[in-house]
Amino acid sequence: MKVSVYGAGNQKLYLEKLNVQEKFGGEPPYGGSRMAIEFAKAGHDVVLAEPNRGIMSEDLWRKVEEAGVKVVSDDVEAAKHGEVHILFTPFGRATFRIAKTIIEHLPQNAVICNTCTVSPVVLYYSLEPILRTKRKDVGISSMHPAAVPGTPQHGHYVIGGKTTDNRDLATEDQINKLVELAKSAGKEAYIVPADVSSVVADMGSLVTAVALSGVLDYYSVGRNIINVPKKMIEQQVIMTLQTMASLVETSGVEGLVKALNPELLVRSASSMKLLDKQKDLEAALEILSNLDDLIKKEIENAEIKPTTLVAAQSLVKEIKTLIGGAAAEGAIKRSARKLFEH
Amino acid sequence: MKVSVYGAGNQKLYLEKLNVQEKFGGEPPYGGSRMAIEFAKAGHDVVLAEPNRGIMSEDLWRKVEEAGVKVVSDDVEAAKHGEVHILFTPFGRATFRIAKTIIEHLPQNAVICNTCTVSPVVLYYSLEPILRTKRKDVGISSMHPAAVPGTPQHGHYVIGGKTTDNRDLATEDQINKLVELAKSAGKEAYIVPADVSSVVADMGSLVTAVALSGVLDYYSVGRNIINVPKKMIEQQVIMTLQTMASLVETSGVEGLVKALNPELLVRSASSMKLLDKQKDLEAALEILSNLDDLIKKEIENAEIKPTTLVAAQSLVKEIKTLIGGAAAEGAIKRSARKLFEH
Repeated sequence: MKVSVYGAGNQKLYLEKLNVQEKFGGEPPYGGSRMAIEFAKAGHDVVLAEPNRGIMSEDLWRKVEEAGVKVVSDDVEAAKHGEVHILFTPFGRATFRIAKTIIEHLPQNAVICNTCTVSPVVLYYSLEPILRTKRKDVGISSMHPAAVPGTPQHGHYVIGGKTTDNRDLATEDQINKLVELAKSAGKEAYIVPADVSSVVADMGSLVTAVALSGVLDYYSVGRNIINVPKKMIEQQVIMTLQTMASLVETSGVEGLVKALNPELLVRSASSMKLLDKQKDLEAALEILSNLDDLIKKEIENAEIKPTTLVAAQSLVKEIKTLIGGAAAEGAIKRSARKLFEH
Repeated sequence: MKVSVYGAGNQKLYLEKLNVQEKFGGEPPYGGSRMAIEFAKAGHDVVLAEPNRGIMSEDLWRKVEEAGVKVVSDDVEAAKHGEVHILFTPFGRATFRIAKTIIEHLPQNAVICNTCTVSPVVLYYSLEPILRTKRKDVGISSMHPAAVPGTPQHGHYVIGGKTTDNRDLATEDQINKLVELAKSAGKEAYIVPADVSSVVADMGSLVTAVALSGVLDYYSVGRNIINVPKKMIEQQVIMTLQTMASLVETSGVEGLVKALNPELLVRSASSMKLLDKQKDLEAALEILSNLDDLIKKEIENAEIKPTTLVAAQSLVKEIKTLIGGAAAEGAIKRSARKLFEH
């Protein structure tokens, strides 16, 4: 398979700031260059585009080249090469710029994949004018490592499939190609809704995992111990998570914490500690009882800004019913970008 | 102070199902009757309305009456009595029915308070037609015990203040009266935005606490270890919690779990375990790795229903701009009720 990877990975971040080697093992290079090496070793024809040769030592570059990866400095050269295009590019605007540059040069039926630096939803929206006209053949998906490539933790790829609102951003063939590519490199392939992939694969998956453990804890205690009806448990979960998300949206994390009042929350939630196995709650009570000084100071200065608490899916339905058509679509699209852009 | 409490509390639930006495200590009666006893002992003139005398044993009723509480079976009689009205009434419709019955009979400037069975927001909306016309003097707030009254854990009341969108559901005088009442009974008084009170005080506070610990963990690790900009951390928190809330809204807890794929999530989030002190994440990984059979089966049969992922506050702004006026207000109000009704 012809594969193009964009971005070798910030080795300074991995080695010096995150101490990846010490903490997780494996060996450099980490990131996009490691993905390129692994694909090449699996027998694929791989190009790695990296304009900044100084991003890693010549020793590491030698490893990349010895694995059979062709290194280029020009994104357009990589664009013309691959069936699969993986953006291991910087966060933010740089990624959109690169995506817009390469799309014009891709071979027919190529697929562009995000990793951790951009959501496939936002990538899709930013390319939509071209994807709906000149390049209807190009698909958008993910080859999200959901771990640092090069560490033993990286045993999988998260691939974006049909969105939760049933849109296909890539064809079945394109997605199957990604599954095949992942498997050929010895990785597990997980297909998840494209608009959920960042939630389960980005750094924020920490929050997803912890919040989900709380949901499952309440779901279990609620049904088995307190006999709360399923519907009521779900209502409370929606209320809780929706309120928290909206408070962060208007007022930041410090505004959220101020509104929720950790001292009070510890008192309330303590009464929900009914079983020994609720280690999630135990840890939460411990953390909320021992806030560090930085966050304490931030809470003091925080302001809870005007927030209109609503159930999001209900409001989506309202806007579709009340306005409908392109105006509703536009509003929804802008609010989706707000959700997924970082 | 003249106080009316509605509902003595389901002693069978507390004693037999929740084993409250064994687990938390204290002694029966628990619930509304205990609140009434404590207020009476603090020197207030208290009426407890309970139409179902069989809800607890005559022994317990004697305790209530010996404390100086006047027990009545008729809600209207209690309605005519108090400056403060506390609904320790059943979940759902019964509470609205009682609120609508009593409001006509309340003395001037009385305040109606919810506990755990209804959100003050929904209580307000359900009474709004009267509150905006005949009974502008009546306030809505909370005297939410956020624990089982009668247990040692109940050392506080959560009182609903100005909402996060700056609406006053009660006057300052009415709120101060509640603070005074709580303190007179030896309890800490926490004033929180009325629309946040359920989130920090209901049973779902389990989820709030655990999710907040995850947010704080990521906030700390992100800033101190990985050097993620604050804004990006917040974007990921919004994305995560908003996506989870919306998935539960459309597809239930089992749909949420199916979409997030715990096996994958454990793999992703493991790479965010960077410090020993992340006990929240440790517990979450453990829980997600050992799902019980009931939830596993539910996930198998679950369906991820169409979900349009958007940032809720952004969509609120859109709808205000695009439609505005009463139509926007109506849509927002309906979606707020959907959020807080259970």
